[in-house]
Amino acid sequence: MDLELAKRLAQPNTTKIVLCVLDGLGGLARQETLRSELERADIPNLDRLTVRSEVGLTVPVGIGITPGSGPGHLALFGYDPYRFDIGRGVLEAVGIDFELGPDDVAARGNFCTLDASGNVSDRRAGRVPTEVSASLVERLRSITIPGAQLFVEPVREHRFVLVLRAPGLGEAVSTTDPQKTGLPPLRAGGADPASERTAALVNEFSAQAAALLADQPQANGLVLRGFARYPDLPQFPEIWGLRAAALAVYPMYRGLARLAGMTALACPGGMEEQLAVIRQRWDDFDFFFVHYKKTDAAGEDGDFERKTHALEEFDAHVPELLALGADVLMIAGDHSTPALMAAHSWHPVPFLLRSSYCREGHTVHFNEQECLKGSLGTFPAVDVMPLAMAHAMRFQKYGA
Amino acid sequence: MDLELAKRLAQPNTTKIVLCVLDGLGGLARQETLRSELERADIPNLDRLTVRSEVGLTVPVGIGITPGSGPGHLALFGYDPYRFDIGRGVLEAVGIDFELGPDDVAARGNFCTLDASGNVSDRRAGRVPTEVSASLVERLRSITIPGAQLFVEPVREHRFVLVLRAPGLGEAVSTTDPQKTGLPPLRAGGADPASERTAALVNEFSAQAAALLADQPQANGLVLRGFARYPDLPQFPEIWGLRAAALAVYPMYRGLARLAGMTALACPGGMEEQLAVIRQRWDDFDFFFVHYKKTDAAGEDGDFERKTHALEEFDAHVPELLALGADVLMIAGDHSTPALMAAHSWHPVPFLLRSSYCREGHTVHFNEQECLKGSLGTFPAVDVMPLAMAHAMRFQKYGA
Repeated sequence: MDLELAKRLAQPNTTKIVLCVLDGLGGLARQETLRSELERADIPNLDRLTVRSEVGLTVPVGIGITPGSGPGHLALFGYDPYRFDIGRGVLEAVGIDFELGPDDVAARGNFCTLDASGNVSDRRAGRVPTEVSASLVERLRSITIPGAQLFVEPVREHRFVLVLRAPGLGEAVSTTDPQKTGLPPLRAGGADPASERTAALVNEFSAQAAALLADQPQANGLVLRGFARYPDLPQFPEIWGLRAAALAVYPMYRGLARLAGMTALACPGGMEEQLAVIRQRWDDFDFFFVHYKKTDAAGEDGDFERKTHALEEFDAHVPELLALGADVLMIAGDHSTPALMAAHSWHPVPFLLRSSYCREGHTVHFNEQECLKGSLGTFPAVDVMPLAMAHAMRFQKYGA
Repeated sequence: MDLELAKRLAQPNTTKIVLCVLDGLGGLARQETLRSELERADIPNLDRLTVRSEVGLTVPVGIGITPGSGPGHLALFGYDPYRFDIGRGVLEAVGIDFELGPDDVAARGNFCTLDASGNVSDRRAGRVPTEVSASLVERLRSITIPGAQLFVEPVREHRFVLVLRAPGLGEAVSTTDPQKTGLPPLRAGGADPASERTAALVNEFSAQAAALLADQPQANGLVLRGFARYPDLPQFPEIWGLRAAALAVYPMYRGLARLAGMTALACPGGMEEQLAVIRQRWDDFDFFFVHYKKTDAAGEDGDFERKTHALEEFDAHVPELLALGADVLMIAGDHSTPALMAAHSWHPVPFLLRSSYCREGHTVHFNEQECLKGSLGTFPAVDVMPLAMAHAMRFQKYGA
């Protein structure tokens, strides 16, 4: 829905909303059993909850569109994922817990191997070990450019993040990655004056880096891409009138929540600790976003059994979740990650909402097939927040 | 979806997509049996395929909107049918296999009867026989106007097509049809300078035609309407990255496919030959659009039994269709044509998609009622192509 309208309809209340996102929740049936991960899993608590809830399937971004983690979560937070498109560099930065500010342009960096003529011979520098990469990042930190602050942060293997900080930098900067081997790294260019300033910084950085890396056997060059400014997202607490907390173990999801204006609470230890932190901070927030990663990790690995177990493990926490006493409890996914595909997919995602105002269906199991028949039907993920607001009695009537 | 985004997400692959359009596929139940054409038909192959597929209902254009053949097909090809509106004149021209070019403005022409005072007394010239009409068209071909090429082509009965060819002609031209009897044909007017040039050509053509037709007893006048330039459609192969072939017996559908940039392959002999041509050209294309007309023709004639038989006849070809070995096979319709209505209708249309990544439902029959309960639910026809691209592994992830 239109976020200005959301702001207008939002009204104060004391109700609490909990949104659990099981990453990559949706799956596909194995041919042998004709059962999906959810259909296979023993999840008595979720099944019991389903009977008393409204269930449906969410379409994360659009029919046939496989979302990355960014768009998948933004949609659940109420942002039109086509309109609010977060750049690669920013996602890389938040993925390592780098706190981006409004003057920042972030880029994804790759160490690469250059041959004697200065052409790229390996775009990933032989996937140089993370330790080597980290020590090279240390070297790059000695680079200074007047008028800008520079941050270089290691990620994993050949990947790193570069953040340029200076007022008024543009993000419409062309990549320095020639995209294939046998060509030299490119000079960055800017599509407008503000981005030309960024490009000049990028080229100066690249030149100084070239000298610092020249003695390396593998990682003797670098390329930069995905330049993106700090995204100017309308802030979640202001749109919905909710003091919002994020409880995520992985930095990427904490980062996304922070971009949306949520408070990211530290909870390194998984669901047990996430629930404990919620209980401690119950009075301080109106909305809790809880992120559960194991389902996606197993799905991405193509491990059907492990994904099934991850679902069962989550199911064991459902009684505690219910015991929180939220007025609105939602179980959702940012996208499907069928173990059969070992990747994110476009398939709609099971969704459940429990409140005192449910049109309870006759669904008794929480899985793809039953949610399809649920009272919510198949609907866009971007409508999850308006639905939550309604059930939390936090939306006024529209029109007289 | 946005076609620029489609272009960005499309990625190369070797997968093949086959889209079978059964014209006017959807129907309505007869009161005596409470069964629709599809429910009545004996279609064991489609039923068997349904078990292993995702099924749903497509809304061709919008709820309550009955589409013509143009919008019905454009939506299935991924074009927003509200945004890409193909003018009447162009549809008439492609409907007789006239190959329109970018400098053309086409118009639908009607022969009419004028009384002694020059007023229209019959807007269809007593539905003058096609042979008479064709000989009058021959006469009209003697008309020449400096600076433009003219093409006059017979259609059927009182109908013909006029194509004006000259660079920079506009299409915002008012009709010369007074829309009722007792009034004389109107002078064409243009809404802008380019269209004024077209209008001048139209008026000159009409004046010369009046002299040539004056001796006729019935068809002694003509009116022109539906002026339309060659539509500037984004080209299907560029949007989706698919080498696309169209296999249609009727010129209108070949023409529509050509406007979209598909290659229309000759196959005058029906499904048998359409399938043979696909087999021959399998390696040359990634996407095959197969058009089956009999369902619509029977529906339009209000012939319930014949439509049922047309469905059964199609069903007999399903094993051969499957034997093609496409990665994605779709059975769709451009709109419903319930025999009970003897006309196109707005009712959602059964749709089936088979690939290796199906969330197979528990639907066992291919008909309106079962598709309603299918895993795809009721969705816009314009989303058929994104869905096909996803199942063909030809779409990258959206966002990181």
